[in-house]
Amino acid sequence: MKDTADFTEFEVGYDIPALPGMDESEIQTPCLILDLDALEYNIAKMGDYAKSHGMRHRVHGKMHKSVDVAKLQERLGGSCGVCCQKVSEAEVFVRGGIKDVLVSNQVTQPAKIDRLARLPLLGARTICCVDDMANIPNLSAAAVKHGTQIECLVEIDCGAGRCGVTSTPQVVELAQAIDAAEGLRFSGLQAYQGAMQHLDSYDDRKAKTEIAILMVADAIDALKSQGLECDIVGGGGTGSYYFESASGVFNELQCGSYAFMDADYGRIHDKDGKRIDEGEWKNALFILTSVMSHAKPDKAIVDAGLKAQSVDSGLPTVFGRTDVKYVKCSDEHGVVADPDGVLKVNDTLRLVPGHCDPTCNVHDWYVGVRNGKVETLWPVSARGKAY
Amino acid sequence: MKDTADFTEFEVGYDIPALPGMDESEIQTPCLILDLDALEYNIAKMGDYAKSHGMRHRVHGKMHKSVDVAKLQERLGGSCGVCCQKVSEAEVFVRGGIKDVLVSNQVTQPAKIDRLARLPLLGARTICCVDDMANIPNLSAAAVKHGTQIECLVEIDCGAGRCGVTSTPQVVELAQAIDAAEGLRFSGLQAYQGAMQHLDSYDDRKAKTEIAILMVADAIDALKSQGLECDIVGGGGTGSYYFESASGVFNELQCGSYAFMDADYGRIHDKDGKRIDEGEWKNALFILTSVMSHAKPDKAIVDAGLKAQSVDSGLPTVFGRTDVKYVKCSDEHGVVADPDGVLKVNDTLRLVPGHCDPTCNVHDWYVGVRNGKVETLWPVSARGKAY
Repeated sequence: MKDTADFTEFEVGYDIPALPGMDESEIQTPCLILDLDALEYNIAKMGDYAKSHGMRHRVHGKMHKSVDVAKLQERLGGSCGVCCQKVSEAEVFVRGGIKDVLVSNQVTQPAKIDRLARLPLLGARTICCVDDMANIPNLSAAAVKHGTQIECLVEIDCGAGRCGVTSTPQVVELAQAIDAAEGLRFSGLQAYQGAMQHLDSYDDRKAKTEIAILMVADAIDALKSQGLECDIVGGGGTGSYYFESASGVFNELQCGSYAFMDADYGRIHDKDGKRIDEGEWKNALFILTSVMSHAKPDKAIVDAGLKAQSVDSGLPTVFGRTDVKYVKCSDEHGVVADPDGVLKVNDTLRLVPGHCDPTCNVHDWYVGVRNGKVETLWPVSARGKAY
Repeated sequence: MKDTADFTEFEVGYDIPALPGMDESEIQTPCLILDLDALEYNIAKMGDYAKSHGMRHRVHGKMHKSVDVAKLQERLGGSCGVCCQKVSEAEVFVRGGIKDVLVSNQVTQPAKIDRLARLPLLGARTICCVDDMANIPNLSAAAVKHGTQIECLVEIDCGAGRCGVTSTPQVVELAQAIDAAEGLRFSGLQAYQGAMQHLDSYDDRKAKTEIAILMVADAIDALKSQGLECDIVGGGGTGSYYFESASGVFNELQCGSYAFMDADYGRIHDKDGKRIDEGEWKNALFILTSVMSHAKPDKAIVDAGLKAQSVDSGLPTVFGRTDVKYVKCSDEHGVVADPDGVLKVNDTLRLVPGHCDPTCNVHDWYVGVRNGKVETLWPVSARGKAY
């Protein structure tokens, strides 16, 4: 009989799904795997694009929540920094060594403002968004209290219908108030059009982005006439970065999903009517799942359900297979239609998640694989960091 | 200037959303809160029901993934043990002191079988489900290797369309093979009808459960004729437990969601046509969220999006409010329609999540509140334990 003391040690399965050096077939499922060749391809490609178009790329860390991926994006993709959506995410990235972080969101709770104002003490440039006059004295007071500087971007709602102001006079009013506030610096504009990134047609996305570009250009002109310069004009996602890059108005991209890809983004079409996951980007992120039951001949039950992914943007697709299809998802089960009964218990499938961001947020680890072997494990460093 | 060393300490916001003793208004959002009065009411009520109907209650730990809640269910609800869906969840519950754990699912990967077979070494009765003959020698070999016993329930698919066999001869064949296998014990049947728990009408749920009860009764009779007794006949959920309790066939309930409630369960109707969250159960689980932007007069943007909840079963409802409505959810934003402009930045709302299980699985903590004060913090102990 084995000693119970065995259980007190770090253990594959309990603590982590795999160890470096393992064969891919030994990974305990369900878990996230990253195809490292595909990931490096995507990161280098977007880096080259930004550089050749004179754009900075502030990669969106909210997607992967990983310090390791962010550092790869610095090294291979030449990214200038990270954006994220929460102060707690920013804390993780800054503690992990990222030196330039934008919280591309409003920070309004008093405790969060205090935490934000302390980030520069760790040596990081700290930026957040503002869309409310009442927020400015609070941010200012916290920066003064800690002897730091918070840079502020005025957020323009250019179509997403979430945070942000919708008129140039409001932008100017906020920018002037920021400029006048001790401890703050007016650093530019945040204008991410989140609502059109997933529109199928290139032309539809272009039309929506053009509206955004006009709004931003108008605001920049009005600010200039008041003597206010925009160091950062940020926006652009995986479905639109070429429009912002060609605008002559934006100078920072904020793409996230390009690095991993997912089924919902993969479906949208490029300029030539081709799916973007069939040429522009490679699928690098997968949920590795295995069959745990095949008691009915035409149905395999796999171990990746709602706790291994988010289905807000649709069910996952089965990568590289047309003979089987993931058709239903419950908490811990996925039903895979297997009309020809080709799957067996313990067979594994690579699922492309419907939506990468909230899928990554339920996992603790990325298992990096190359040539069928586990090469590395990276923690989802900011997983669950929601405050 | 504060010293950077401040950041190395355990910190509210970075590590946890609140501390005991805090006022509810000081909690950093978004986070899960538990109304402890409501939780204790639900747990005691279901415990009383099971006891007065001669049923054991093996509470479903997959829902809350919390050792603390499971222990409260033991203490206040007289539960006989826990069920869960993954070996890694079982490991958490057993390490946390639960002495009787059913993995109400198939365990088929070799490494997982080995981990399951080691659980009795920690002093826990260990049970799993079987629906495949080929699984039996593997379970047996692992139990023999570790000198332990794994109890097995044959799983009947009584309508859920997932794991489980569908005929009495298959049940008997599996039970006999388990009975004959060294290191295993045939302990009964698993028959959870997961597909009808959320049907709106009491009569529809009753009709579906009656089919399940007939299948189970037939299997029990056939097993008896082969000299095989069922120690456990388990099933029943929050939408059906009264049917299984009255069946004369089932002896263990496996309810989970009753303890917390959610919007999707809350909508179903009881015998008298009343919503079950308006009398039968109280809402104990909430996502506490706060308004971070109100730049448009009729729209409040709150900080709980897809990373604070799962929307697979619909959007959350706003508890106790009819004047505002949560209408849209993106990664880190929720759009709350506020037609009369009654909300202000930093106002908080209690959201009832659409589906409690996968919502709990994205959070690290339950903040227990009573009378407007934070009373306790409980880790979501088995969060992310998917293997």
